[in-house]
Amino acid sequence: MSGERRPVVDLTDEQARRALPLKWGTVPRDVIPAWVAEMDYALDPVVLEAVQRALADGITGYPLFGHDPALAEAYAGWADRHFGWAPEPEAVIPVVDVTAGVRVAIDVFSGPGGVVFPTPGYNAQLGLASITGRDEVRLEVPASAERAEIDLDRLDRMFAEGAQTLLLTQPHNPWGRVFTRAELEGIRDVVVRHGARVVSDEIHAPLALPGVEHVSYLAIEGTHDHAVAVVAASKAFNTAGLRCAQLVVPDAASRRLLADQPMARNDSHSPLGAIAARTAYAEGDPWLASLVERLDQQRALLGDLLATHLPLVRMRPVEATYLAWLDASAYGHDDAAAVALERGRVKVSPGESYAPGTTGHVRLNFATSPERLTEVVERLARAWA
Amino acid sequence: MSGERRPVVDLTDEQARRALPLKWGTVPRDVIPAWVAEMDYALDPVVLEAVQRALADGITGYPLFGHDPALAEAYAGWADRHFGWAPEPEAVIPVVDVTAGVRVAIDVFSGPGGVVFPTPGYNAQLGLASITGRDEVRLEVPASAERAEIDLDRLDRMFAEGAQTLLLTQPHNPWGRVFTRAELEGIRDVVVRHGARVVSDEIHAPLALPGVEHVSYLAIEGTHDHAVAVVAASKAFNTAGLRCAQLVVPDAASRRLLADQPMARNDSHSPLGAIAARTAYAEGDPWLASLVERLDQQRALLGDLLATHLPLVRMRPVEATYLAWLDASAYGHDDAAAVALERGRVKVSPGESYAPGTTGHVRLNFATSPERLTEVVERLARAWA
Repeated sequence: MSGERRPVVDLTDEQARRALPLKWGTVPRDVIPAWVAEMDYALDPVVLEAVQRALADGITGYPLFGHDPALAEAYAGWADRHFGWAPEPEAVIPVVDVTAGVRVAIDVFSGPGGVVFPTPGYNAQLGLASITGRDEVRLEVPASAERAEIDLDRLDRMFAEGAQTLLLTQPHNPWGRVFTRAELEGIRDVVVRHGARVVSDEIHAPLALPGVEHVSYLAIEGTHDHAVAVVAASKAFNTAGLRCAQLVVPDAASRRLLADQPMARNDSHSPLGAIAARTAYAEGDPWLASLVERLDQQRALLGDLLATHLPLVRMRPVEATYLAWLDASAYGHDDAAAVALERGRVKVSPGESYAPGTTGHVRLNFATSPERLTEVVERLARAWA
Repeated sequence: MSGERRPVVDLTDEQARRALPLKWGTVPRDVIPAWVAEMDYALDPVVLEAVQRALADGITGYPLFGHDPALAEAYAGWADRHFGWAPEPEAVIPVVDVTAGVRVAIDVFSGPGGVVFPTPGYNAQLGLASITGRDEVRLEVPASAERAEIDLDRLDRMFAEGAQTLLLTQPHNPWGRVFTRAELEGIRDVVVRHGARVVSDEIHAPLALPGVEHVSYLAIEGTHDHAVAVVAASKAFNTAGLRCAQLVVPDAASRRLLADQPMARNDSHSPLGAIAARTAYAEGDPWLASLVERLDQQRALLGDLLATHLPLVRMRPVEATYLAWLDASAYGHDDAAAVALERGRVKVSPGESYAPGTTGHVRLNFATSPERLTEVVERLARAWA
């Protein structure tokens, strides 16, 4: 597929308002939305056409629950090409979305002890431990840390004090980090020492940007007996609303345990989501290559814009995702996101949603056009500086 | 809308195999599938076109979580026209499917005591109580009962012994019953006496057939402080795979409690499902009228066919749904569904999935063409008799 490309097409404001009812439809027209993790780009036409064909065929009923061989094969092929490690197809099990997959994995596989959740952490999963009946044990990365990392000594203590699961987001949202193989091995060693489990949310894996490589936690030796991954095409292909992620369960006994659960545990993905995912995995490379190139450019542009207009904002290197975690506390606002909205007419996500107390931080979504990103940072500068 | 109609169009075998990957795609080609609750009819073209337009607009991202005003208004209008009682739109909250809605309602609103589940009961909800951490207390209707009813004395005892929630399926699947206002009032009296709660799964409400009327449990006086309903357009319009049902929460304090839950509790419906539901509620009456007429005919045909070919099969009157609960035990097979598949090449749902131990029973889906239904019963007769 080398050389072949399908371009990334920017949505106009009008198109974006129609296509993205949450991101664009819930903000006033004079506000630029740079919050929730959706991209202002048209869908990969190949993925869209596959879903349109399915709909024309009337595929609006139940999907294949439990195992979808075509989807599983497509994921295995994709993982092999992109990440150099692939599960056996039997290990790939559809779920409705990554957060539901994380919940199922904790509910079914984890002991009753606490769930370690590194923060700042994905807002949809903040509090997730509590709905599984477990304590959430927050492993906070201090805002002052040079590099966002899992502190293995603290992780060790948390397991020693009774936690039994690590919810690992990798690549990390909102840190923007891709963990190295050495870091993952370090995590594994601590986990294994305590007989703990790992749920590895790898939804951003396709969005590892140039300069780094995504390594699945399951690609680390000695992890299959204690870990599952949750993966999806939906973040990279902008199809979160089509409703299908995949749980990767490499251990056969764990798969049998999952299959024996009551149906209500996991029977809610959509056949359209499964078709979108299968198509993205099998045929999406030429579009993804363009996307990653674009996001790489946007990342560089964001760095330049911040240096010019908001030199006091601190941003650690973004290695993956299209989400930048910005420390704007030097500008002294009690709630940086609220000021951005009120005075700048830009909606960014408040730090508070990812780590309670971090009101000087915001998460900024840069998956838009260069023009909008420029306008966003200029507006933030007028609002904050 | 009187007089205006859109016809029900039968799918050919080839079309059904494409459209219904679970129902048709998982059985050998010589088997007629009459199992899972999907209909062998083409989609209402008005609903399909609305979803196709949404997809052409690129609506594949996040929906409006928590409250979708257009959907809520459409449901309120529909409920008013069809059932003579409607919630205020604020009460209508999207969820991914009815079973997820039932689970959320129990998780968030119910005490820790057992969940009474009348059986035979919907297989996807058998065992659901256990995944909420509660006991499932089965209120079994004996196969010999003349009429399938909730035994209020037994319900009373179950609450007295610690159960705190009744999961009511109404219209009932697989009983085919529509509960009368008097029955619902009797249930309410027992529930109120014990300070218990009700979750009323009303997904089959649009499929109340001529001769009966659906009454929402929430239309009964004195229920709003202890009950929620879970409703959907997906069963009547064959759009289960588009992923949107609705929780009706009439009590404002309960709505606030739900809104305060972690996001992972309920953030997984699809915008396409919401659009399908909204369109079905607002514009689906002319198609539903044809569907109900067809199902009424199929119900009568099934009665005739059974009388002719399988006179020993016992079927209570089907008042709603397109699912008949058949007691074939007089024919003496250990597993009537297995014999139907092996010898008759018809796939029906085994009674065992709805009430453990009822292997002489099957659930038969009659939402197909008259020709297929005729062939199904003739094959069952050859297999069983």
